[in-house]
Amino acid sequence: MSTITIVGAGMMGSALAFPARENGHDVRLTGTHLDREIIETSKRTGQHPKFDRPFPAGVEYFQIEQLDEALRDADMVICGVNSFGVDWFMENVLPHIPDTTPVLSVTKGLIAYDDGTLISYPEYWKRNIAPRRMNLNAVGGPCTSYELVAHDHTIVTFCGEDVPTLRLMRELMQTSYYHIRISTDVMAVESAVALKNAYALGVALAVGLSEKINGVGSKPHYNSQAAMFYQGVTEIRKLLLYLTGSDEQIDTAAGDMYVTVFGGRTRLIGTLLGRGYTIDKALEELKGVTLESLVIIGRINKAIKRLAADGKLDARDFPLLMHMDAIIEGKATSEEIPWTSFTE
Amino acid sequence: MSTITIVGAGMMGSALAFPARENGHDVRLTGTHLDREIIETSKRTGQHPKFDRPFPAGVEYFQIEQLDEALRDADMVICGVNSFGVDWFMENVLPHIPDTTPVLSVTKGLIAYDDGTLISYPEYWKRNIAPRRMNLNAVGGPCTSYELVAHDHTIVTFCGEDVPTLRLMRELMQTSYYHIRISTDVMAVESAVALKNAYALGVALAVGLSEKINGVGSKPHYNSQAAMFYQGVTEIRKLLLYLTGSDEQIDTAAGDMYVTVFGGRTRLIGTLLGRGYTIDKALEELKGVTLESLVIIGRINKAIKRLAADGKLDARDFPLLMHMDAIIEGKATSEEIPWTSFTE
Repeated sequence: MSTITIVGAGMMGSALAFPARENGHDVRLTGTHLDREIIETSKRTGQHPKFDRPFPAGVEYFQIEQLDEALRDADMVICGVNSFGVDWFMENVLPHIPDTTPVLSVTKGLIAYDDGTLISYPEYWKRNIAPRRMNLNAVGGPCTSYELVAHDHTIVTFCGEDVPTLRLMRELMQTSYYHIRISTDVMAVESAVALKNAYALGVALAVGLSEKINGVGSKPHYNSQAAMFYQGVTEIRKLLLYLTGSDEQIDTAAGDMYVTVFGGRTRLIGTLLGRGYTIDKALEELKGVTLESLVIIGRINKAIKRLAADGKLDARDFPLLMHMDAIIEGKATSEEIPWTSFTE
Repeated sequence: MSTITIVGAGMMGSALAFPARENGHDVRLTGTHLDREIIETSKRTGQHPKFDRPFPAGVEYFQIEQLDEALRDADMVICGVNSFGVDWFMENVLPHIPDTTPVLSVTKGLIAYDDGTLISYPEYWKRNIAPRRMNLNAVGGPCTSYELVAHDHTIVTFCGEDVPTLRLMRELMQTSYYHIRISTDVMAVESAVALKNAYALGVALAVGLSEKINGVGSKPHYNSQAAMFYQGVTEIRKLLLYLTGSDEQIDTAAGDMYVTVFGGRTRLIGTLLGRGYTIDKALEELKGVTLESLVIIGRINKAIKRLAADGKLDARDFPLLMHMDAIIEGKATSEEIPWTSFTE
C-alpha cells in the first residue's frame, strides 16, 4: 500500500480521503492554518464537520505545523486548497515535497497576465519554481465533494505531462464509484474547468431571472437555462480553441458545468444576481463564502478585452462573458441580458 | 404581414403559433388526422388542451380535410409532426406545398439505412421527392413547448441550405423571447438534435439509479448525472465528427440535452429504467406515450455496429450508447452501467 498526503482540509481535498483510504492506503489529511478546527474536529469525531458521514477508519489527521511529518515518504501529495491559496501552497508546501513525488491539485482557476495570457495553476507553479522541476498534475471534471463522499458514481480527469504518473495516480485513487480519465493536455483540462465555473453563473442567472418572473419556489423553467448553457458551450469552445488549439475538453467543461449549476456557491450568487440583487447585496447575503466564479469571470473578461485590443480575438464572440462581468461590476442587470447577440 | 401555416397540432407545432401570431402574421394551425380533437377544442375554447394559456387572438384552426385551404398562399409552412409522422407528412402534405415555399420542420430524428448511413429528415424527404426540389428546413436547439408558450427566453437554430430563406424565416418568427440562430449545416444540427434525445436518456438513467439507491423523492444527486452528461458529450462529439466532419454543433446538442433532461418523455422512461424497471414494465407505465428516444437509440446502435463491422468506426468509442440499447433490448440493467469503459 502507498501513502497519500492531502494538504488542505476543505471539502474537496477531504473528500478524496475516502477513495484513497478505502483503497487501503495510508492517508494523512493535513489542514492549512485556516483548517485548524476542521482537523481538530475530525481527529476527535472521525468526521469532517461539513460531511454527513465519518471518514473511513484509519485516516490520520495533521495540523500544518506537522507538515513535514505528514509529507514524510508520501507516494502522492494532493493539494486541496482553493484558488485563493495557490500562492500559499507554492511558498509553504511545494518546497517540502521532493521533485519526483506526484502532486495532484484540485484547485480550479486560471491566472491572467496583463498582456492577456492565461495559464493554468500547474503552469503558474512551474514558472515560479523554475529552474526547479516538479511532478505537477491536476484534476478536473464534474465532482461535488459531498456526493463523492456518498459513493455516487463520478467521472473526473487527471491531467499532467507524464502518462506513467497519471496511470499511477489513477491506480492509487480509482474505486468502484470514482472513475478517472487521464489527459496530458493540462491547459485544456484546466481551462475547461475554470471556464465552466464562469459560465455556470450564466445558467444560474437564468434560474434567478425565472424566479423573479414566476416567483421564488415556483416550478423551475428550463428553456432559458438551456439557452444559457448553449451559449456557454459556444463561448467556452471558442476560448478553448484560442487558448489550447483544441476543443476536445468541451466534454469536461459541459459535464462540470452541469454539476456546478446544481450545487454550490456559483449557483447561489448567480441566482441572486438573476433575481435582480445588486452585486453588493448578493455578496452581503453570502458573506464569508469564497466566490471563485467571480474571480475567473473578471480575469477572463480582462484577458479577452486585451486580446481583442491586440486583434487576437473578437470580443463580440463572448457576449455572455462580457455581460456577466458587467453585472458583477454593477454596470448591468440580469434583465438586460443581450439575448439577440447570442444569435449573431 | 405574412401567412404561416402549421401542419400538425402537437405541442411543439402549436407552440410556434404563439411567436408567429404575436408578430402579427396570419396563422393557420392545421391538425393531422390524429389531432382532430385538439383542433376542435382549440377552435371552441381558443386554447390547446395541453397548454395552460390561450392561443393569441386571431389564430385560425383547420382540420386535415381543409389542408389546401390552410396552405393557400402560405409564405411559410411549419411541419409539426413527430418522427412517426415523417412519411405521412411527405406523402400527404409535401405534394400540396409549392416548390419555393419555405418548409420548417420541428421533427427530431435520423433515418438509418442498412449500410449504416444516417441521414436527416430533410435529406430523407429530399431523396424521396427527387427529382422534385423543395425548400426544406428544420429547427433544432433547446426548446420545450410549454415554456415557449410562457414566453421564456429560448434560443433555437433554424437550419437549411439557403441563407436568404433562413433569414426570412427568422424575420417572421423571432420575438423578444424567441431567439433564432441560423446554420446551413442541416445534417450537423439535425444530428445534434437527434443524438441529444438518445443521450438524455443516459442522464435520466442516472436520475433513476440515484432514486433507487437513495429513495424516490430524496434530494437529487448530480455527480452521476454529470458523469453521464460528460460521457454523452464525448460520444456525441465523436458521432458528429464522423457524420458531418465537424463538431461545431456540440453546443446545440449540449443545450438541447440539458433541457431534455428536465422535461418530457425521455426523462420519464430513463428514470424508470434507471430505477430498475424492465423495458416492458416501463413502457406499460407510460402507455400511449411516443418514445422517440428509444427509436433513435436503436437506429444509431444499429448504424454504429454496421459501421464498426466495416471498419469505419470503433464501437468501443460508444459504450454508453451500446449500454442504453442493451437496456432497451432487455439485455442489461442500469446497475451494470460500464463506468470503467467511460474512462478508457
